[in-house]
Amino acid sequence: MIYLDNSATTKPDTQVLQSFQQVSERFFANPSSIHQLGGEAEKLLQRSKEQAAQLMRVRPDELVFTAGGTEGNNLAIKGISLEHRKRGGHIITTQVEHPSVYEAFNSLEQLGFTVTYLPVDETGVVSVDELQKAITDDTILISVIHVNNEIGSIQPVEQIGEIAKQHPKLFFHVDHVQGMGKVPLDLGDSGIDLCTISGHKLHGLKGTGILYVREGTTLFPLFHGGGQEQSRRSGTENLAGVVSMVKALRLMKERETAGIRHMSELQTLIRQKLSAMDGIFINTPEQAAPHIMNISVPGLKPEVLIHILGEQGIYISTKSACSSKQTDESKILAACGHSGERSTSALRISLSYDTTKTEIDTFLRELEKAIKQLKAVLE
Amino acid sequence: MIYLDNSATTKPDTQVLQSFQQVSERFFANPSSIHQLGGEAEKLLQRSKEQAAQLMRVRPDELVFTAGGTEGNNLAIKGISLEHRKRGGHIITTQVEHPSVYEAFNSLEQLGFTVTYLPVDETGVVSVDELQKAITDDTILISVIHVNNEIGSIQPVEQIGEIAKQHPKLFFHVDHVQGMGKVPLDLGDSGIDLCTISGHKLHGLKGTGILYVREGTTLFPLFHGGGQEQSRRSGTENLAGVVSMVKALRLMKERETAGIRHMSELQTLIRQKLSAMDGIFINTPEQAAPHIMNISVPGLKPEVLIHILGEQGIYISTKSACSSKQTDESKILAACGHSGERSTSALRISLSYDTTKTEIDTFLRELEKAIKQLKAVLE
Ligand SMILES: Cc1ncc(COP(=O)(O)O)c(C=O)c1O
Ligand SMILES: Cc1ncc(COP(=O)(O)O)c(C=O)c1O
Repeated sequence: MIYLDNSATTKPDTQVLQSFQQVSERFFANPSSIHQLGGEAEKLLQRSKEQAAQLMRVRPDELVFTAGGTEGNNLAIKGISLEHRKRGGHIITTQVEHPSVYEAFNSLEQLGFTVTYLPVDETGVVSVDELQKAITDDTILISVIHVNNEIGSIQPVEQIGEIAKQHPKLFFHVDHVQGMGKVPLDLGDSGIDLCTISGHKLHGLKGTGILYVREGTTLFPLFHGGGQEQSRRSGTENLAGVVSMVKALRLMKERETAGIRHMSELQTLIRQKLSAMDGIFINTPEQAAPHIMNISVPGLKPEVLIHILGEQGIYISTKSACSSKQTDESKILAACGHSGERSTSALRISLSYDTTKTEIDTFLRELEKAIKQLKAVLE
Repeated sequence: MIYLDNSATTKPDTQVLQSFQQVSERFFANPSSIHQLGGEAEKLLQRSKEQAAQLMRVRPDELVFTAGGTEGNNLAIKGISLEHRKRGGHIITTQVEHPSVYEAFNSLEQLGFTVTYLPVDETGVVSVDELQKAITDDTILISVIHVNNEIGSIQPVEQIGEIAKQHPKLFFHVDHVQGMGKVPLDLGDSGIDLCTISGHKLHGLKGTGILYVREGTTLFPLFHGGGQEQSRRSGTENLAGVVSMVKALRLMKERETAGIRHMSELQTLIRQKLSAMDGIFINTPEQAAPHIMNISVPGLKPEVLIHILGEQGIYISTKSACSSKQTDESKILAACGHSGERSTSALRISLSYDTTKTEIDTFLRELEKAIKQLKAVLE
């Protein structure tokens, strides 16, 4: 199997699964139970949080364990907007967000908030100037994706963080789901108040994630209840999930520098080969995350190409998994100003640290073959 | 180990863990990916939902897979209130709900809703008459716990369902987390529009659950995004969690009738023995779920008793796990009209289908010993 759909999800690491299994068996007690088994579970939870905090270079109580990226984004966006609604009703995001961000913003419009959706240039990047101009006295939240999940463009979140710092009234959230492990981001003095990551994009398990919430930042919880996670996310803790998430994070961090270099090399190779092929448009800008390569092959139905490659055991994607079953047009490519034909024929190849050069060579060869074959049929 | 804290959480069944493991390894693809691996994951998801629906005797698209009971309760309560806020701003619940219900109601007060918290009698049961009287033209939601997690009282949810049917404008939600597998509830023509269950209370895994949402009932989602779960709960599906949840449900259903009878017998035994012991008050009413026995031993600190039993490898609880670290007084016992001393000295013994008579005999012997020992010290 040549799996090149790592932006949709990754294969869980064996060690991650083992951790999950062991914790589920041996530390199954409820961390809130005051008997000894509960105490042991509670200690393991605390230790895991400390380890995650160390890996992310933040404080343990700034982390909230969630069930994934969608929860993290919704908790950040709705949590800030509802909690601080009396400060102002204006919130800002971009036109190239993941659905879990832009649909959350849409939903807040229904609740009376006003939203600015910032446009992007042809590389999919927002203008920091325009963002600055969009801020009003009424603005309480800015949410910007770090690495775009369809085309890999990188937003200037560090610069935006500097601007956010000058507006103490507003909060700045970053969707870092596709950035973690691919484009390093230092949260320290970043001006970023909230930051979402997801376990299953990091060879962790589905149903796991972390929301970073800067000290002093208050949220209206999505889950009220027993007060777990310092009342920011109630519910019996999924301790096995937490431990597995931290394990995934640690394994990733150990390989991060080499992994990023390796993926960049493969990406360069893919770009070279595909640039030389007829009828292929490359949608991923030169300055992009190392793991994503988005291309369009106008005239060919992406799902047909994907199916042919799938029969060879090669798995790539249309757009993002989250939107692949909905409309045909990529909103992201449309926002970059690409024509209908180009934005409806996009394919996404996404790598992991474990992707090999041999796999990429095979993929490129099979892709070329498949395109030729299909074009011959169509002529 | 004699584990008698099954209302806080249960030990995951080995088969459930195996399912989780296998699905995580073999069906790791994103069900939304259109390649063959995604298609297989999608099929498994659909099949699991059909199986769960069959087990619960409802329709597959009436089920929303969640991350647990707290999420289910919050999604039902906030989801109905926010979606239907234009119909009315009054919502009803009881004084004996789990924190994930009553804190959700509290939070809606902050958002402008008016809440009626119905009182209970000394057995912890609401009056159907009073509930009926509380309904106004402005009422859009009633939420009632089925089986109380601290004392095991059973609310007349079937009768309330009949009342709810006469008020088509309002929705009726039942927190069935402690009821599932203990006190059967037929959703069919029940008048119940929403019903929460949680995996980890059924020897399933933490981070799994189901919210039943009757056909035609619309919700304001907590998680907006890619449109998964028919847009009622977006986010990459935790397929391994889903399959494990359905497995737990199936294993439970196979043993349900015998399991309930078995627990009832043990409960009767416990009641007999403890009634004969000095200085013990039984807080669980005669008409209660079979798995919970709540007692008070005024004058003795519950945490000390729990600790002594824990040293013998016997694990019981104070109140519910969710509130065991907060204030000392049980809100539930106070709502039943019990005195401060009785409501601050409560212990909860909670059974599973696997609890044996030998375990109960040992527990009763050790409890009696521990109480004598402590009282001797105090005299
Ligand atoms: C950029 C981005 N944000 C958020 C998400 C949502 O994360 P999850 O699938 O864990 O809900 C995804 C992936 O689906 C993503 O790529
Ligand atoms: C009655 C009741 N409702 C809801 C919950 C919350 O479920 P979960 O722990 O899965 O979030 C619990 C248990 O904690 C419960 O006992």
